Amino acid sequence: MNQTRITLGIDIGGTNTVLGIVDDKGNCLADTSIPTQATEPFTAFFPRLTSAADSLLTPFQSAYQLAGVGIGAPNANYYSGTIEQAPNLNWGDVVQLRASIHQHFGVPVAITNDANAAALGEMLFGAAQGMKHFMVITLGTGLGSGIVVNGDVLYGADGFAGEVGHIIVQEGGRVCGCGRRGCLETYASATGIRRTMMELLAERTESSVLREVSFASLTAANIAEAAQNDDVIAKAAFERTGEILGKALANVIACFSPEAIILFGGLANAGYLILDPTRNSLNTHTLNIFKGKTKLLVSHLMDKNAAVLGASALMWKELGK
Amino acid sequence: MNQTRITLGIDIGGTNTVLGIVDDKGNCLADTSIPTQATEPFTAFFPRLTSAADSLLTPFQSAYQLAGVGIGAPNANYYSGTIEQAPNLNWGDVVQLRASIHQHFGVPVAITNDANAAALGEMLFGAAQGMKHFMVITLGTGLGSGIVVNGDVLYGADGFAGEVGHIIVQEGGRVCGCGRRGCLETYASATGIRRTMMELLAERTESSVLREVSFASLTAANIAEAAQNDDVIAKAAFERTGEILGKALANVIACFSPEAIILFGGLANAGYLILDPTRNSLNTHTLNIFKGKTKLLVSHLMDKNAAVLGASALMWKELGK
Repeated sequence: MNQTRITLGIDIGGTNTVLGIVDDKGNCLADTSIPTQATEPFTAFFPRLTSAADSLLTPFQSAYQLAGVGIGAPNANYYSGTIEQAPNLNWGDVVQLRASIHQHFGVPVAITNDANAAALGEMLFGAAQGMKHFMVITLGTGLGSGIVVNGDVLYGADGFAGEVGHIIVQEGGRVCGCGRRGCLETYASATGIRRTMMELLAERTESSVLREVSFASLTAANIAEAAQNDDVIAKAAFERTGEILGKALANVIACFSPEAIILFGGLANAGYLILDPTRNSLNTHTLNIFKGKTKLLVSHLMDKNAAVLGASALMWKELGK
Repeated sequence: MNQTRITLGIDIGGTNTVLGIVDDKGNCLADTSIPTQATEPFTAFFPRLTSAADSLLTPFQSAYQLAGVGIGAPNANYYSGTIEQAPNLNWGDVVQLRASIHQHFGVPVAITNDANAAALGEMLFGAAQGMKHFMVITLGTGLGSGIVVNGDVLYGADGFAGEVGHIIVQEGGRVCGCGRRGCLETYASATGIRRTMMELLAERTESSVLREVSFASLTAANIAEAAQNDDVIAKAAFERTGEILGKALANVIACFSPEAIILFGGLANAGYLILDPTRNSLNTHTLNIFKGKTKLLVSHLMDKNAAVLGASALMWKELGK
């Protein structure tokens, strides 16, 4: 009997873990989520995860065949199948995630980090269909990157390639969670633009609705809303963020010459507010031979269950090999 | 009859064009060179090139089989087989190099730039044998890079990826031939260290044998010799060059996570003088998760006919596909 094949996509985040059943066209047939409860050990998380997955899969057992499981998770290593020292999970040094999941389901399992999963989601189901050279830049709490070269995710020698967020763009600049200073993600991310907003409120004297908002309660969405309402300083925050991001991406283009760079995540939701200054800066700073070649796009998947689609795409990619 | 297969490797430089016959072990069985005469058009260069190649191949015709021709040349595009706007060749906008050579020899032909050819030379015959993720940095007049990902050269969407020399490392910094300012190659290259030497002679007051040498007649080899003789300013020039190169490579490692970075060409001949400060800077500036992972090496091919071996390796790689 020819059952329809499905994959299970799992996105493990610091707060929630989302699970979805995805067909080979990128349709999410069912999904659910559980709190990750990041402070608990992996041994407590694992039975909750498999229990949620089993319940989700039950209605599909007769007519569908589970072909594999794809997982996006912080610090997940595609090569080793382990999660290593994820800063937001209290899981210890090394967790054998792939082996544990494989043991439970008895089907192929692949894991990678969320930015790589996002890149695969765009390649199979989103804005990068048909592209062999592109990258996804996720602008969330930090800046992640999933880089595709010759149609495959760039994992590098150790599985951890693609740390564009930790390119140093300003010597002696902002303190970064990595222990160094001036990393791109301290400027170009949802957190980065909050820092820039505070910096501009200090530098400049114009009135701004955001002068009433504390750093702790300020969000990238607040800044976008203010900018849409012509708040001068909020608009300047997007300008400065795009200027820095475009400069850094010009350097990245010199290395990779991608067909497209796709922005994804929190800050990318601001649309033209972040796209326009980034594109202007990119055009200004790009080496002549690359000028105008690399498209700057926003993800096509953000309205959908993007994280689950990405995790699932990782497995569909494996199955297509 | 089973003839031994050979390839013809051709390295087209701004001054000389070198041709060599190379077997699949990387032995150069014969070589020759002709002046490129860069001011003449391609139509004048081409018959001189094929005539030299034919003479070189004649003694091999009975016992050997020419399996293909690999060519390293400035601005050579692997995808299109063309040389486009090479700044040091008076060949016009686009030359159909691959097609012309193929028409003459009737065997497979592949072309790429000299840094990519160098990377393939290291992968097949040199320091990168067995590696799937590494890069070669050529430190000559400029800084070129050949980047290997998953065992293949990274050509990018348009065939021109790998312009690490044009990463901007200093905003508003030194004027670069590309029309911008602050590109890595204006600091880290044979030309870059000459500029740094002049800068240091201006900044500092210590005596130096190089105070007697004009900028025009100063070479990277002069600076290396002085540094070996404990010239304080020459040593400082290597320190500053390595510091800047190491910082830039730390950013490149964050993107690619290569197993090794192999230095090649003029400035790499200085050995420990450039390696030590570059390695120190790399160790200081590399993101924690990559620290100590990427080997910094000097090419194993520099004593040999490296450019020809690289060009030939390009064809051996094609034939092995």
